[in-house]
Amino acid sequence: MSLLIVGSIALDNIETPFGKVVRSLGGSAIFTSMVSKNFCKSSIVGIVGEDFPKEHFELLVKNKIDTQDLEVVSGKTFHWSGKYNDLNKAETLDTQLNVFADFNPQLCEENKKCDYLFLGNIDPVLQIKVLKQMNNAKITACDTMNFWISGARENLLEVINNVDILFINEDELRMLTEVHNIFDAAKKAKEMGPKFVIVKRGEYGAFAYSDKFIFFAPVYPVKKVIDPTGAGDSFAGGFMGYLASAENLDETTIKNAMIFGTVTASFNVESFSVDRLSNINMDDISARKNEIERSILF
Amino acid sequence: MSLLIVGSIALDNIETPFGKVVRSLGGSAIFTSMVSKNFCKSSIVGIVGEDFPKEHFELLVKNKIDTQDLEVVSGKTFHWSGKYNDLNKAETLDTQLNVFADFNPQLCEENKKCDYLFLGNIDPVLQIKVLKQMNNAKITACDTMNFWISGARENLLEVINNVDILFINEDELRMLTEVHNIFDAAKKAKEMGPKFVIVKRGEYGAFAYSDKFIFFAPVYPVKKVIDPTGAGDSFAGGFMGYLASAENLDETTIKNAMIFGTVTASFNVESFSVDRLSNINMDDISARKNEIERSILF
Repeated sequence: MSLLIVGSIALDNIETPFGKVVRSLGGSAIFTSMVSKNFCKSSIVGIVGEDFPKEHFELLVKNKIDTQDLEVVSGKTFHWSGKYNDLNKAETLDTQLNVFADFNPQLCEENKKCDYLFLGNIDPVLQIKVLKQMNNAKITACDTMNFWISGARENLLEVINNVDILFINEDELRMLTEVHNIFDAAKKAKEMGPKFVIVKRGEYGAFAYSDKFIFFAPVYPVKKVIDPTGAGDSFAGGFMGYLASAENLDETTIKNAMIFGTVTASFNVESFSVDRLSNINMDDISARKNEIERSILF
Repeated sequence: MSLLIVGSIALDNIETPFGKVVRSLGGSAIFTSMVSKNFCKSSIVGIVGEDFPKEHFELLVKNKIDTQDLEVVSGKTFHWSGKYNDLNKAETLDTQLNVFADFNPQLCEENKKCDYLFLGNIDPVLQIKVLKQMNNAKITACDTMNFWISGARENLLEVINNVDILFINEDELRMLTEVHNIFDAAKKAKEMGPKFVIVKRGEYGAFAYSDKFIFFAPVYPVKKVIDPTGAGDSFAGGFMGYLASAENLDETTIKNAMIFGTVTASFNVESFSVDRLSNINMDDISARKNEIERSILF
């Protein structure tokens, strides 16, 4: 099965207590696809400027990520600059949309036929544009953030109403639903359309909420978190990649997808950019999945 | 097997968003024993004043909690007054030690022979006094809080060095160890003496840390939290009660103890005082344990 991923592709400046990087490869589509490519054929939809380094293209090709719908236009690539003081919350120092401001995703015929779709955290208007070109997708999912919840609520609700799976941080879930109890909030979000709500809780793990069950995934106890950027995107990459490989939406599949997402997010935070993600394979992923099993099975 | 529990016995005034109670039965020894009595013979060590209502004594007797070492002296019972604005953190409005100020626990011969000991959250000096009378206890455990970590550090370290199991909140673990990464902090606390460190994380559940494994317990998704007072004590009651009934300290036993603690804490927060705890039995506990299993097994 194949997974189409739309999201940002960025050149980021990031500072954490453990170092800093300048113009490093980032963006939701990058973190998600660099994980999902371990599980299934993965294509990205996005836009970059002429300044996007050749070695980044080569990295994507080397990792067999399909770039047919990666547009290159004149101008500069999307840029985010952020700083983490305590590794839990990023302080945004600068955001430059650049070529992303005029992005108008047009999928090639091959990508329109992908079975699975992940709408990474971007403007809901763009998410809708891609969703409308994917009439035959079997399973669709989206992520979002506070900026769109407050600034583009109506469009976002249209997206949420039309996907099978919503990925969302716990604070943003409360903001979206205006409900404080986290389980009631998940219930209310589910009533907005999706079959599953995946609530991400940072260092406390994540849980999946559906009509039939709740499933809690812990975190993998990473020895040293270097940079949390992309943790949510790489979680979604493991989750959606596994889903596309399993071709199922039953309880066992969703639970395993949660654990795969937990594992892949744990690798991501161990380095800046995709340095760690680009050096893992399914053996590494499976080994860590086994470790997690021991930490929750009894 | 039998479990001895030392801790506070209180008449509390508590206000939460869902109501308020005046002079209601509380204290760590009460919440812990009202749970552990479902699993094993449970005795409490504590002190109350002449104002301690007769119906509370009767409740303890009815629940087969051994009160041989519950002293009644002239004066007023320990009193705590607190308010919860968001159910996660209590604001202490008033604390009156009263008869607790001169408490000097002297165990009867029968209680000195208890196999399991839980030192609830009280002055480490008192915890040491009880510990020294329990030379034949097979398994010992303690709980503590920020007040003792900052104000009675040396005595507390002596307690921690001499117990098998330390129960502690995550913020207080960071305070005790001065380490931010929660897993490194648990490791450092373990090096202070105990075999197991049980880290309580409020609405995010708890984890057990040992040299050989980490185990994550989620929360039971309670529909409505009425009053979180005693959640940690009732967690310890389920944990220690099960341990005393299992007579083992292996990995499987600890993992099951964590889940029993999770279950018993979930009942406790559904009412003020011990209203809910006094109306549950092992069938209720087992049913909820099965529900939790489904939410973490995959």
